[in-house]
Amino acid sequence: MFMRVDRLQTELPAPKKKDPNAAAALQELLGGKYGEMSTLGNYMFQSFNFRSKDKLKPFYHLVASITAEELGHVELVSHGVAMLNNGPDNDGDSKPGGDISKSPMEAMQEIRLAAGFLSNGGGATPVNSNGASWNNDFITTTGNVVTDLLHNFHLECGARLHKLRVYETLSDPTGREVCGYLLVRGSVHAHAYALALKQITGVEIEKMLPTPNINLDKIPECQKYLQEGSHRRLYTFSPSDYDGMAGIWGNGEMALPGDPPGELEVVEGMPEGGKIHQLTGVPSAFTPDYAPEEMFEIATKLYKASR
Amino acid sequence: MFMRVDRLQTELPAPKKKDPNAAAALQELLGGKYGEMSTLGNYMFQSFNFRSKDKLKPFYHLVASITAEELGHVELVSHGVAMLNNGPDNDGDSKPGGDISKSPMEAMQEIRLAAGFLSNGGGATPVNSNGASWNNDFITTTGNVVTDLLHNFHLECGARLHKLRVYETLSDPTGREVCGYLLVRGSVHAHAYALALKQITGVEIEKMLPTPNINLDKIPECQKYLQEGSHRRLYTFSPSDYDGMAGIWGNGEMALPGDPPGELEVVEGMPEGGKIHQLTGVPSAFTPDYAPEEMFEIATKLYKASR
Amino acid sequence: MFMRVDRLQTELPAPKKKDPNAAAALQELLGGKYGEMSTLGNYMFQSFNFRSKDKLKPFYHLVASITAEELGHVELVSHGVAMLNNGPDNDGDSKPGGDISKSPMEAMQEIRLAAGFLSNGGGATPVNSNGASWNNDFITTTGNVVTDLLHNFHLECGARLHKLRVYETLSDPTGREVCGYLLVRGSVHAHAYALALKQITGVEIEKMLPTPNINLDKIPECQKYLQEGSHRRLYTFSPSDYDGMAGIWGNGEMALPGDPPGELEVVEGMPEGGKIHQLTGVPSAFTPDYAPEEMFEIATKLYKASR
Amino acid sequence: MFMRVDRLQTELPAPKKKDPNAAAALQELLGGKYGEMSTLGNYMFQSFNFRSKDKLKPFYHLVASITAEELGHVELVSHGVAMLNNGPDNDGDSKPGGDISKSPMEAMQEIRLAAGFLSNGGGATPVNSNGASWNNDFITTTGNVVTDLLHNFHLECGARLHKLRVYETLSDPTGREVCGYLLVRGSVHAHAYALALKQITGVEIEKMLPTPNINLDKIPECQKYLQEGSHRRLYTFSPSDYDGMAGIWGNGEMALPGDPPGELEVVEGMPEGGKIHQLTGVPSAFTPDYAPEEMFEIATKLYKASR
Amino acid sequence: MFMRVDRLQTELPAPKKKDPNAAAALQELLGGKYGEMSTLGNYMFQSFNFRSKDKLKPFYHLVASITAEELGHVELVSHGVAMLNNGPDNDGDSKPGGDISKSPMEAMQEIRLAAGFLSNGGGATPVNSNGASWNNDFITTTGNVVTDLLHNFHLECGARLHKLRVYETLSDPTGREVCGYLLVRGSVHAHAYALALKQITGVEIEKMLPTPNINLDKIPECQKYLQEGSHRRLYTFSPSDYDGMAGIWGNGEMALPGDPPGELEVVEGMPEGGKIHQLTGVPSAFTPDYAPEEMFEIATKLYKASR
Amino acid sequence: MFMRVDRLQTELPAPKKKDPNAAAALQELLGGKYGEMSTLGNYMFQSFNFRSKDKLKPFYHLVASITAEELGHVELVSHGVAMLNNGPDNDGDSKPGGDISKSPMEAMQEIRLAAGFLSNGGGATPVNSNGASWNNDFITTTGNVVTDLLHNFHLECGARLHKLRVYETLSDPTGREVCGYLLVRGSVHAHAYALALKQITGVEIEKMLPTPNINLDKIPECQKYLQEGSHRRLYTFSPSDYDGMAGIWGNGEMALPGDPPGELEVVEGMPEGGKIHQLTGVPSAFTPDYAPEEMFEIATKLYKASR
Repeated sequence: MFMRVDRLQTELPAPKKKDPNAAAALQELLGGKYGEMSTLGNYMFQSFNFRSKDKLKPFYHLVASITAEELGHVELVSHGVAMLNNGPDNDGDSKPGGDISKSPMEAMQEIRLAAGFLSNGGGATPVNSNGASWNNDFITTTGNVVTDLLHNFHLECGARLHKLRVYETLSDPTGREVCGYLLVRGSVHAHAYALALKQITGVEIEKMLPTPNINLDKIPECQKYLQEGSHRRLYTFSPSDYDGMAGIWGNGEMALPGDPPGELEVVEGMPEGGKIHQLTGVPSAFTPDYAPEEMFEIATKLYKASR
Repeated sequence: MFMRVDRLQTELPAPKKKDPNAAAALQELLGGKYGEMSTLGNYMFQSFNFRSKDKLKPFYHLVASITAEELGHVELVSHGVAMLNNGPDNDGDSKPGGDISKSPMEAMQEIRLAAGFLSNGGGATPVNSNGASWNNDFITTTGNVVTDLLHNFHLECGARLHKLRVYETLSDPTGREVCGYLLVRGSVHAHAYALALKQITGVEIEKMLPTPNINLDKIPECQKYLQEGSHRRLYTFSPSDYDGMAGIWGNGEMALPGDPPGELEVVEGMPEGGKIHQLTGVPSAFTPDYAPEEMFEIATKLYKASR
Repeated sequence: MFMRVDRLQTELPAPKKKDPNAAAALQELLGGKYGEMSTLGNYMFQSFNFRSKDKLKPFYHLVASITAEELGHVELVSHGVAMLNNGPDNDGDSKPGGDISKSPMEAMQEIRLAAGFLSNGGGATPVNSNGASWNNDFITTTGNVVTDLLHNFHLECGARLHKLRVYETLSDPTGREVCGYLLVRGSVHAHAYALALKQITGVEIEKMLPTPNINLDKIPECQKYLQEGSHRRLYTFSPSDYDGMAGIWGNGEMALPGDPPGELEVVEGMPEGGKIHQLTGVPSAFTPDYAPEEMFEIATKLYKASR
Repeated sequence: MFMRVDRLQTELPAPKKKDPNAAAALQELLGGKYGEMSTLGNYMFQSFNFRSKDKLKPFYHLVASITAEELGHVELVSHGVAMLNNGPDNDGDSKPGGDISKSPMEAMQEIRLAAGFLSNGGGATPVNSNGASWNNDFITTTGNVVTDLLHNFHLECGARLHKLRVYETLSDPTGREVCGYLLVRGSVHAHAYALALKQITGVEIEKMLPTPNINLDKIPECQKYLQEGSHRRLYTFSPSDYDGMAGIWGNGEMALPGDPPGELEVVEGMPEGGKIHQLTGVPSAFTPDYAPEEMFEIATKLYKASR
Repeated sequence: MFMRVDRLQTELPAPKKKDPNAAAALQELLGGKYGEMSTLGNYMFQSFNFRSKDKLKPFYHLVASITAEELGHVELVSHGVAMLNNGPDNDGDSKPGGDISKSPMEAMQEIRLAAGFLSNGGGATPVNSNGASWNNDFITTTGNVVTDLLHNFHLECGARLHKLRVYETLSDPTGREVCGYLLVRGSVHAHAYALALKQITGVEIEKMLPTPNINLDKIPECQKYLQEGSHRRLYTFSPSDYDGMAGIWGNGEMALPGDPPGELEVVEGMPEGGKIHQLTGVPSAFTPDYAPEEMFEIATKLYKASR
Repeated sequence: MFMRVDRLQTELPAPKKKDPNAAAALQELLGGKYGEMSTLGNYMFQSFNFRSKDKLKPFYHLVASITAEELGHVELVSHGVAMLNNGPDNDGDSKPGGDISKSPMEAMQEIRLAAGFLSNGGGATPVNSNGASWNNDFITTTGNVVTDLLHNFHLECGARLHKLRVYETLSDPTGREVCGYLLVRGSVHAHAYALALKQITGVEIEKMLPTPNINLDKIPECQKYLQEGSHRRLYTFSPSDYDGMAGIWGNGEMALPGDPPGELEVVEGMPEGGKIHQLTGVPSAFTPDYAPEEMFEIATKLYKASR
């Protein structure tokens, strides 16, 4: 089972401008080959299909708990996409959509993922930066533990490469924060799968890290996360389960050489996270609707009734 | 953010036989048009993309918390699939895979979803009962609240129809339990979206229920859930968020006429759920591997180290 | 614009048994590469996109009118599929669906296209015999007249091959009638596109026919259509348009050597066609619903009101 | 069976400029999730697969006749796409394509759907505004009448939202006319499915309209259609069939509150429609060919022969 | 550039019976996630896109030459598929197809991949064992050498697992020989990519082999290839290029512990290979045609003219 | 079996500027409907699946040897794509990637196929100019020789049209050279399939050429290839096989009327071809890596060891 908490894993700064093509670049980290839907889909189905769960508890716990973190990554990138499509904060939903007969959305014709506006009103969906859908072809769940872990290790390296490239295309703080945070957490996952493989096979595959061959100290947005030690922490993302992975992540293992030094540790629960950004409605785009006032009133009344 | 708990939403009985075609039928409820990946995908992205979240709190809370429940539905169906592919409990992983040169898996040639064995070792993946992948085409997230809620109401009615048909094809208790449980919970979701629509539009759309026109009292596997009142309960699936939906689900609203009577209520947290079934490894299928003993030993040692 | 008439292009005999795998074979003629969705999609979009329509009237009329006939082919194959999935005529919808807890649809687990039952209740959809969807990749509309006509000629030859093979798998009269009728009409279309190409390029490409190298006199189900001269006729499928194609089909051109001799002719309007088969509802499959009596009553009352 | 008439449902003004990105936006209304291929595909297959057609005549007639109208919608949007890709009227096909070695089509590199030029010469195809193909995933045909009608009602609401958004991106009269016309006709369909549902279920679901919450009086391009009463009319799109739907559309039912008042009526046959726009050939793009004169001469001769 | 030689990499024994479901299982090795189309597609595009080819010659040569070998693997599996679909050798094409009106292909309705007969006449195509198409989602070409090599290493491990499972489903010698040969050659590729990674990163990743954890000595069909030392050899598959990979494969490196011992060596050119099996035509399936005699005569005459 | 030679079929001039949208246009010739992946895929699988190979040797040899040439076309277009994405020659990989925190790749947000940079570092992949994947739907392999050859003839005509249109969009010499070369070779293939069809059917279908109706003398980039007689030559692309096709290509057949005159001839082996262009690494894009010096050193050492 899964529970949900109404916070993001990290707080995202408001975007400086409405920038649908930056949002589209970020889509690669959501629905692209190495995007968060892929990491989520892989670990989620691997954890469901895991054989001999009891006998392989530390490995099962690792895959199972990272699944929960990946849900939050999908959420984080999705918020980044929607925020960049929406633009800076405003109070746009406080009045109806006005005159729509003057082509108010003409600019949306020129954006890369026009369907993202036309069908989704600027919301995120599991497609890549070219608009191609994420699907089952991106999932590996063989039931063979070494094959699956090896796949996961390679997936995290590929995902790191993609995050780096997406980061290089972004100038807006919203998207850069998404990348900075995910680069640190993705490094943790690559490291964790490497240690799991090392335990089973004896191969010190963590020495391949970092791949690509660049340290996180080159990315300003990563620094605050490194300084607070995020790169040394795996959360159980659970009230009381999955701590068996401490046999892999911990047990005297240390941070990677290029990162701030220190011992690896499993932390029960989840990080404190940050506030979820308010996405203003855009009545002229019919979100939440063209004339939403009555809806707001109803909602206020219902909310009071629930207190 | 999301948390995970190492339990299923309900406990599944062990299958009586290995039955890959029954598992394939169940796949329709996982990756089919109206499967759990669709309900999850729709509500998850709608909740991320929700505009004016604060002003529309009861509606946002509803979609957000049902998302978390749907994660557990994806998990439940996936376990059903893997269990039916695997067959009755045994201790198969206690010794290596033996002689593989005598076509030990010849029967797998004749099953409907051969790739489910060949690529996934009998694990679940997000495909339908014909092996076609789930994808973004199944997601509606327009940002317009009425359109999205109306979509969700129709989706739950369609999903109910599919569960009924899948149920009719199954004789094994594992798959039938999955259907029985999901029929009750799906009815709750249809009812909830109907009430949300009624609040905004004034249309008593819940009077369309049940669609299809059959009461749950005809399904033996639903009875225990109805008797414990599951059909009257929405869980927040959260430690402390999302209770704002009580303005919609509650507030004097009652169970549907064909179901055991009583008032609707929002319950903080999640149901107790049941134990996750142990999926035995099948060394002859290389799960967790052909000769897994050493892996088991390593895992045991690591687990002890983590205590 | 298009109009619709409540008849099939030819009348289909009732199936002798419920035969979902035969229906699945017929799906290849609906959603397969060379199926009727492909012929429809190609000619429909070519006719919309046709350049210099006035100056090229005979060619435009040819493609435009065959489009209308192909709609009827899609309809015919779809009825064949649904009839074979449904089985012999009966009065099944005169009472509710009964006890559904005894696995009444267990047989549907073993059929090739299980999703056709689970999601579509035995109805036809645009997928091939493996359940893969028809899509835009099957459409050629280049705007270059020779390229498009050449494509169409090849498409009709390929379609003839597929119809022959599907025919060879069928023993039930419903599906065989579909194939027999379509083989005759498909030959007309191949012949027509060949003549159009000959007019533009001077190449006597109709001499490649028949491809594959077998005459229709080998197919018992084709005989009645050949005897009534169907192979020599192109219908305008229009009240008063598209007769300009008579410059291509007609003009002294004769039937192909292996077919009954005679001159080609354009016929205004459409063939008389046959009755549409009543597809009985199956309340246990929730079609039209589990307990449809009230719906029938309402419909009767509404129908009377409309007289 | 279907017939075809060589007219559009409404006449489209010539575009003011060649505008491939506007054409691409319009593609969302053709091959997007809620585009005309989806409405066509859903109603067409539902009408083929309809169970108990005789007993449910008014409902069957409704779905069957709207199918025919949707064919004309697919046609209308396709013409809009091709016209916008082609640009203002001219006599470009009166001479050969000239020197092609000076990159005459360089501008086509920058358009959103480059394949629309490279493969389709500016013609329409069933893809969305991102170039992703329409496919079977967009079709719902469950055989359960309430589920299917409910799906159709939601589909028309979603389609209305998309038409509004596409409209907001367009400044050229061609595309705006397409949207204006379709908004009126789509409202009719949403209203019709609502009334059908009301008859069966008793739920006054038509009170949800309009969704989104904006009246058509805000759209200048809708006014002439509203004034002539198009919003109160359902055509049978048939010479003599399908009038049984008058029990649903009619029978004292009135226009929606925000639209010009009046009673609903079923009209036999189809609207008068407008002229199909001549798409000029572009020899430099090889449509109908690079040097088409001889082809034009042949066509003229053949056309005369057919008189 | 590529050249072709009219031989298979190894000779395949004739099948003992026509076995379309065995052929379908083999399709997983052709168009499945870890099939030969995937290994081919990955290495081919990686070799085209390889950056700094001169400076990284040993690595470029490795990927480039294995590409050529994979072409032969695609060919080998395809022949296996077609042979199993076709059945034992015969002289079926020496007379026409006979009476096709007695449902001679009825058995083809029941096979798993019916489209493989209906559309492809029993030929191989790049789909998996469920009929889903191979596509670009299976290709990784990042341009980052470590990421790509790591991907390739994991791909070969996954491919080995799949070959083992397909092997376990097959009793016919044709398919088993395909698997036996490919298991040996796939092990070579896994080993080679491991050594390449070791050279760059210093990680002895080849110690993960074999994955899955089973030695090839358990597979009778592998023995003759092991005995002739195939597992120690990389061919350049080129008249005179690509021998720079000897710095990686060779250089004192030895066979893997579980295999017959010996030094690794690069061999210029290609293996001797075996005869391509004659696929008999099946005139009743219209291959090469229904009445092929005249075609054979023409071919004979043309062939003589070419001598 | 296939062999590989480290040369391109023709030498490509370096691009004048980095031009990702030109590269994207070229992608249509790689992964589009009529792109080189399609010609390769069709002929490759047709040659594998060819029935009665011995009896139909000239036809089998034709399809088999053109397959090998198409591999080189896929290679050629891929290099064109990668070169245009990469830009003019430089020594960029001689130092590390520098400061990546200043959005050095911001321009990549605006390109049409952003995923081509983000996921593939500017490398080619089998997608079309809209980013949609090539797949099995583009393959025709029916096993019926006339149908397959007719398909191939139409495919080459369609491919010629597409090459012409892509050519018209390109101003950079790299892409234009690709088109010029392929137009000549594609004409050879269209001509060859026409002659094969003529031999079997007696229809002089080669008289349809050229389609579209424009001679290659209008394309400056084709002239050098025409002058060296490339349009009259088919290479066996084999050390000693496939010369049986000389019965079709040769045998007194002459060049097409619009091309430089002369007799057709089969040439054993392959053309001399040209040098493969060095694709410089871009460390700031992590190709071959961010800090590749050590990798270069290792490679140099390994290469020396292999001499």
